Amino acid sequence: MLDRRRIAAAALDLADQQGTLTIPALARALGVAPSALYHHVSGRDEIISLMREELIITTSCDRDWSQPWPQALDKWTRGYLAAFTAHPRAVPLLATTPLAEPCIHAVYEEVAELLLTSGFAKDQIMPMITALESFTLGSALDSIAPPVMVSDVAREKAPHLAIALDHTPTDQQRAQAAFDTGLQALLTGFAALLPDHHTP
Amino acid sequence: MLDRRRIAAAALDLADQQGTLTIPALARALGVAPSALYHHVSGRDEIISLMREELIITTSCDRDWSQPWPQALDKWTRGYLAAFTAHPRAVPLLATTPLAEPCIHAVYEEVAELLLTSGFAKDQIMPMITALESFTLGSALDSIAPPVMVSDVAREKAPHLAIALDHTPTDQQRAQAAFDTGLQALLTGFAALLPDHHTP
Repeated sequence: MLDRRRIAAAALDLADQQGTLTIPALARALGVAPSALYHHVSGRDEIISLMREELIITTSCDRDWSQPWPQALDKWTRGYLAAFTAHPRAVPLLATTPLAEPCIHAVYEEVAELLLTSGFAKDQIMPMITALESFTLGSALDSIAPPVMVSDVAREKAPHLAIALDHTPTDQQRAQAAFDTGLQALLTGFAALLPDHHTP
Repeated sequence: MLDRRRIAAAALDLADQQGTLTIPALARALGVAPSALYHHVSGRDEIISLMREELIITTSCDRDWSQPWPQALDKWTRGYLAAFTAHPRAVPLLATTPLAEPCIHAVYEEVAELLLTSGFAKDQIMPMITALESFTLGSALDSIAPPVMVSDVAREKAPHLAIALDHTPTDQQRAQAAFDTGLQALLTGFAALLPDHHTP
């Protein structure tokens, strides 16, 4: 039986394999005629929306937002990364289509309320959310990129880079360390935006 | 006349238009047979490498690295964003292929030297560079994403999100504000990693 969640899951699989999504290919993957798909969805944009909802449902929609904002944003962003990293080739598709899912609006509402009540200015909220999302999308793409290997670098021409690479993991920990460093820096930098932040 | 820079430029155009790159399509766009391409490049990976080099040549390879690290990283990252934003649909392609271009290694060497001599730990250098790049790639994708519009949000269900959106530009300034906020936060957060940083 075809239903919207099954369509979303198949579309994620297809985008993972092919880095793109077409209605005929999705219908083939599901073993149905394209016309059968249109009984459930209005077209490609709605399928992409379902894919994103499928990812978000499994990560964000039942979060606990009662923590202080740095911990809440940290958990939220890590959940996003995990969802996107599971489908890295679908990321570009998901990143450049309007966010219209009610579930995502509900998550944004929680984040916006948390940040406004934590003292951030009204015009800082969406830039902060968007910066976190852009960093997370980029990190998901990075997680499937091969590392720069010290063996590829001419040591005598790039001695400082060679030192840095000597101290960089070459396994999955490489992308994780970059994500951890960036997320921590973003949260530290956001804290400095608060009016009661004391700079040294 | 076919040469490597002309191939790179045509490949960027093709990826921009189609979000993907194949040798037959590139040969068609250049009006040559696929075999003619192979006189200049070994294959698709090398073409992607040329595309990236073409972007980097125009942005990073002649930078002045004599400024203090926050200003130098700020300028470098903004240059990257400008290059990627000019070719947003090529970003996923460029992001997930190994960096092997000598020119990029030369840029990394400059950044690594700057950060090491500024006091950052050896194991922080690549995570910092990678976090900046991931943020920039994600921001380039965001720059072609349509904004969340307050009109799409149910005000009564999402009152805080509606306030945040009321204070968010709906033009190109939206993505720019998110990038500015995130970059500033990353640099502030990086500064906190320095051993002589005084926390309040």
